[in-house]
Amino acid sequence: MTTPGTNTLIFRGGARSDAVSADDRGLAYGDGLFETLRAHRGTLPWWDAHWARLARGAARLRLRLPEQRQVRAEAAALLAQDPDAGVVKLIVTRGRGARGYAPAADAAPTWLLSRHPAPPAAAHGLQVRWCRTRLAVQPLLAGIKHCNRLEQVLARAECVEAGVDEGLLCDADGNVVSATSANLFVLREGRWTTPPLDRCGVAGVCRAQLLAPLQAHEARLDAAAVAAADAVFLCNAVRGILPLARLDARTWPPHPAVAAARRTLAQLHPAFALDLEHP
Amino acid sequence: MTTPGTNTLIFRGGARSDAVSADDRGLAYGDGLFETLRAHRGTLPWWDAHWARLARGAARLRLRLPEQRQVRAEAAALLAQDPDAGVVKLIVTRGRGARGYAPAADAAPTWLLSRHPAPPAAAHGLQVRWCRTRLAVQPLLAGIKHCNRLEQVLARAECVEAGVDEGLLCDADGNVVSATSANLFVLREGRWTTPPLDRCGVAGVCRAQLLAPLQAHEARLDAAAVAAADAVFLCNAVRGILPLARLDARTWPPHPAVAAARRTLAQLHPAFALDLEHP
Repeated sequence: MTTPGTNTLIFRGGARSDAVSADDRGLAYGDGLFETLRAHRGTLPWWDAHWARLARGAARLRLRLPEQRQVRAEAAALLAQDPDAGVVKLIVTRGRGARGYAPAADAAPTWLLSRHPAPPAAAHGLQVRWCRTRLAVQPLLAGIKHCNRLEQVLARAECVEAGVDEGLLCDADGNVVSATSANLFVLREGRWTTPPLDRCGVAGVCRAQLLAPLQAHEARLDAAAVAAADAVFLCNAVRGILPLARLDARTWPPHPAVAAARRTLAQLHPAFALDLEHP
Repeated sequence: MTTPGTNTLIFRGGARSDAVSADDRGLAYGDGLFETLRAHRGTLPWWDAHWARLARGAARLRLRLPEQRQVRAEAAALLAQDPDAGVVKLIVTRGRGARGYAPAADAAPTWLLSRHPAPPAAAHGLQVRWCRTRLAVQPLLAGIKHCNRLEQVLARAECVEAGVDEGLLCDADGNVVSATSANLFVLREGRWTTPPLDRCGVAGVCRAQLLAPLQAHEARLDAAAVAAADAVFLCNAVRGILPLARLDARTWPPHPAVAAARRTLAQLHPAFALDLEHP
């Protein structure tokens, strides 16, 4: 049973709930985690990888997760009502709490599942800019997909204002990290490189799936290294691989290595195979 | 009309709402601001200062605020139902949004008012420790009271685990910033000093009220400077001035300059005058 019009299910612990409580710590402090999964014909092919990242985040924040089996079954039921749904989003918060930062040890987690249309495949290369917003260096929160996302909100607002598709972000020391909602791969001397995410940024599930097949390596990059690259793409688990066509004044024509990476991705997740057939 | 049991009012734009929507950006991204105000006999003596900080945060985040007049009237009505309530908390979020970081330009803000008991006055000096958690340096978010508070949640969890009353936080470069939910004043050579909040931390309303009367000045401090101070207190708008009795191995006896600061505060907010009379 879904809430009419919103396609969203809300739970507290193991039980359905009509609404998120006003004293939920997700609302008060962004005290939660989320995952956004690409669906394919009612399935979630990368479920295990998303849950593994969620579990890493929960361990870092010492936040209780709901039972994976129940969350997965509810997600499947939500998708079954609309086989054309292309995306499932899961939010898990620390649940209700009294006023104050101290986490209650025994609160049941709040979790929300929602389904959304698939985004259109990237028909053209992305137009991208460097964001003025920089990511703060915070190793305690780096890599995990937590709900403290004001930096991304500010950076994304820059992109909207500038009329570009996405924005690239550096950390406070000038290291390139990622786009606002995608990771970054650059081709240099025939090899794919992607920045490490140990100081800030989100370790994307699509990025992790691509590392081994592309024989990519992690290395810190500055802005000049990105501009000097032979090809650049962004990736995330919802939209797959998004080639860069322009970064401020720098432009890139389509590159065969990016096309090869997209074929690799198509073998890893069937939704991205369809993207290739119907770009 | 309050929601029974929770003492909370929820609004979207100018209209009452039964619940926070599942797609609220406060829940998704901590995309909001909050204020926690000390009440006194049904009034909120520092309303103007709290609203001014809220407005500064809203300008920084380009977040729409509700009408101040309505928020203030609703807060007064909420307090009128329980004249013994000691605290009012206000949360304002960017309202509902589609999936993705881009802020909707036209969303009505969501806002929540809740009333809470007054905390007990500090009968003894606080037992405090240095937190392992460090605050990331992010000038874009520094000073304002936004809802991205995972660092404070982690730091507060350290304090609970260690069995201390509060914890002091340094930034990534070793500069002392504040406690987890209070600002910090240290007495050195007869003068009160408090760290600037231009790189991280929250610029507290109580701190701002005290700066001029105490002839305090802002200066960066390292941990050694705090340990070497003749007296230290924490302060926030809910609990007023909280003297430090112990910081790890360092102890401080009661200091007449702290007692003088508490008398000064009592003249600035009548709730803290009561604290002095009934410690």
